[in-house]
Amino acid sequence: MNTTQLIQQILKKKSFLCIGLDTDLDKIPAFLLAKEDPIFEFNKAIIDATHHLAVAYKPNTAFYEAYGLKGWQALEKTINYLNTNYPEIFTIADAKRGDIGNTSSRYAKAFFEDLAFDSVTVAPYMGKDSVEPFLAFQDKFTIMLALTSNQGAFDFQTQLIKNEELYKQVLKTSLTWENSAQLMYVVGATKAAYFKEVRSIVPDSFLLVPGVGAQGGSLAEVCKYGMNTKVGLLVNSARGIIYAATDTNFAFAAADKARELQLEMQKILTEHKFI
Amino acid sequence: MNTTQLIQQILKKKSFLCIGLDTDLDKIPAFLLAKEDPIFEFNKAIIDATHHLAVAYKPNTAFYEAYGLKGWQALEKTINYLNTNYPEIFTIADAKRGDIGNTSSRYAKAFFEDLAFDSVTVAPYMGKDSVEPFLAFQDKFTIMLALTSNQGAFDFQTQLIKNEELYKQVLKTSLTWENSAQLMYVVGATKAAYFKEVRSIVPDSFLLVPGVGAQGGSLAEVCKYGMNTKVGLLVNSARGIIYAATDTNFAFAAADKARELQLEMQKILTEHKFI
Repeated sequence: MNTTQLIQQILKKKSFLCIGLDTDLDKIPAFLLAKEDPIFEFNKAIIDATHHLAVAYKPNTAFYEAYGLKGWQALEKTINYLNTNYPEIFTIADAKRGDIGNTSSRYAKAFFEDLAFDSVTVAPYMGKDSVEPFLAFQDKFTIMLALTSNQGAFDFQTQLIKNEELYKQVLKTSLTWENSAQLMYVVGATKAAYFKEVRSIVPDSFLLVPGVGAQGGSLAEVCKYGMNTKVGLLVNSARGIIYAATDTNFAFAAADKARELQLEMQKILTEHKFI
Repeated sequence: MNTTQLIQQILKKKSFLCIGLDTDLDKIPAFLLAKEDPIFEFNKAIIDATHHLAVAYKPNTAFYEAYGLKGWQALEKTINYLNTNYPEIFTIADAKRGDIGNTSSRYAKAFFEDLAFDSVTVAPYMGKDSVEPFLAFQDKFTIMLALTSNQGAFDFQTQLIKNEELYKQVLKTSLTWENSAQLMYVVGATKAAYFKEVRSIVPDSFLLVPGVGAQGGSLAEVCKYGMNTKVGLLVNSARGIIYAATDTNFAFAAADKARELQLEMQKILTEHKFI
């Protein structure tokens, strides 16, 4: 997928919603646990009920790895289901990977080829040669952590290097890497005031924004400072949507919550004259 | 496993060698490809041939994830084989994970409970609440990236924050985290001159040292500056050992290379009066 297709989807669906598939057997409806693959059944129901309201889905690999082989199988089935039934959807493996060059190539192969995700999240600590192997894949996106939504973001990301926060150095440095046009960045909604700073460095890139809802970030604030001329935002919500209810109506309840966010997004897209 | 047991094993085997199981179907002996699970068969042969020379094994998860479900299955079989047959061995999941708190807990569950590794490598970029969930597991170790062996290490890790390199801030800050005694650190052998600096901050911690051999780091240099009063080093070699030969004698060839390194280590342990 390329960004033109992603933007077309955003304008068509009037939404820049990404739904986080952080599927946890302790939180999904109990009646699903009797199924052969409860994780996949849950994801399938959520996807079927919300695919017209969301432009992206983001399984976090931690939730799948925690269940070992069965979890990895459920992840594989989920991405295959998305790619087969909703090929227009932008898919994100939220894996936060990163290693030395030849090893990062292996991770890229795992997520871009074996699982056929459109994008993967990566961590920047190991620098250029840990990220460039991901960028070598055409029409695939690498979403690098810049400023995350958690409290620990203040431990290192906002520390000053030559009078400039580390996350800004990360953003600036990444622009010098080969195929940097294939980069997107994670910027937490809980840090809305920073979006202006981020946009001054990466005006054109898409930003993946976690932390709206459960973690307390405001959608309006994020859009005010984070939108660019091509929307440029994918706003993620996980728990607030997928665990809206735990009875047999859980998928409808998830769709209701997704619709609420989509309508907020539609309003913002209208105000910004995108639609 | 606790550090006393690890040190006992080091003194008994006269070795602080860690063997990296970066198993790549393009590099293993071709005759193994006819087997049902070539990755596991390769690992098993390497482990059986070298277990008396090494104190730790470190599968890098990227190499397993690249083969999808079959790869994850081979990883599971490998750790089970180690835990069943060589329970004294210290096992490291080289996964370089890290996410917001509740998600890091999932990764910790995946590697410490589901796969039952003794330790896992993590990335520090997301700070305290991304690492502490790993530290909550008793008798398990969290090996945090400090100064890595690749060229990209100079992009951010050695940048100055308040006149001190980022990797030093990472080391110092981590000491304030809950259960920090469960931390070890990755310090690349290619940066031997930095070991003195590292030891001034974390005198007591074990360091996992990649980059000896294929990446060009010197064992003698690393030991000169990196050893502490309890040895405190696990030196990793992967390609140099496991791909020593690609014919039917590959396991013997691997054992030969491991023996070479073990003898170098024995000499150093003698010189430092550990044995």
